[in-house]
Amino acid sequence: MSDDSDDPLAERTLDSRLAFEGVFLRLFVDHVQSADGHQGTREYLRHPGAVMIIPLLDAEHVLLERQFRYPLGRSIVEFPAGKIDPGEPPFECARRELLEETGYTARRWSYLGGLHNAIAYSDEKIEIYLAEDLERTGDATLDAGETLEVFEAPWHQLLEWVRDGSVTDVKTMRGEWPRRPPSDAAR
Amino acid sequence: MSDDSDDPLAERTLDSRLAFEGVFLRLFVDHVQSADGHQGTREYLRHPGAVMIIPLLDAEHVLLERQFRYPLGRSIVEFPAGKIDPGEPPFECARRELLEETGYTARRWSYLGGLHNAIAYSDEKIEIYLAEDLERTGDATLDAGETLEVFEAPWHQLLEWVRDGSVTDVKTMRGEWPRRPPSDAAR
Repeated sequence: MSDDSDDPLAERTLDSRLAFEGVFLRLFVDHVQSADGHQGTREYLRHPGAVMIIPLLDAEHVLLERQFRYPLGRSIVEFPAGKIDPGEPPFECARRELLEETGYTARRWSYLGGLHNAIAYSDEKIEIYLAEDLERTGDATLDAGETLEVFEAPWHQLLEWVRDGSVTDVKTMRGEWPRRPPSDAAR
Repeated sequence: MSDDSDDPLAERTLDSRLAFEGVFLRLFVDHVQSADGHQGTREYLRHPGAVMIIPLLDAEHVLLERQFRYPLGRSIVEFPAGKIDPGEPPFECARRELLEETGYTARRWSYLGGLHNAIAYSDEKIEIYLAEDLERTGDATLDAGETLEVFEAPWHQLLEWVRDGSVTDVKTMRGEWPRRPPSDAAR
């Protein structure tokens, strides 16, 4: 996967094997040689990438979701998000996911940046978009087995949930940063 | 994994199978029944949890690392972090990782909160600690094959790296929040 001779910390791939291929996840096991000469094993997921959308209803309100997240065994408050389809540009994915999950379209889009969420074992990158000037154009069209609730919340409520530990999804926590209410900026 | 009858979005486990067990990762494939009655598959990792430490050298400087992250094929700037050993309390893990990776101990520790970093396919939770009143008590003692560089950086430099996209590791991005320099708070 890497042979970056300019990086003194780089690890060299000796061999790579697809160890699990499911409907959703692909897990690889590679043998590598580290910079100190030691040989070892690296286990990791290859992920197609994802997007998250921060839908601003107005200056004071956002659209959020409550979705059951099976690995955690409970429902989680988060911004709309989804996996990028093969060959799909990230921005198209963002428009699609916002419409599918919430029924909203946006007239104004801004790209806010990307983040790596699990660098120890996944190459996933999540691209974050701000969606403004929203219009509800229909109902959400979920996949079979996909159940989520969409709700409106004041921006300050999200910040409070992040502060008190009610919101722990890190991409959604990251979503607090484009807007800070006066009370927060003044701290 | 879950049978939370109070949650209208809950998914019910029909069966669960360990599909991959490596040195580092354990991957499960479960059959579930969703709230809409649809039956489907859930693929996910079970993770022992991790810690991240924000080591404050003084009011203006932090300790950071540059570590090769194989899944991304390059070195990443991040705060010290590590996986919790079986039975290890998270705070003990934080003290151990700070010492092992940097050679520093801290006289003052604060727990800043936890985050879930990959809710679609992992139960990993990262607990974040602030370490202050630091003392260098020795050299880092890394595992074989673990190569990283430790360096000091001004706090405002980290904030700048987050803003310009040089730092994309989300746990480290999250680390910007306990302290904001005056120039940032005044925006």
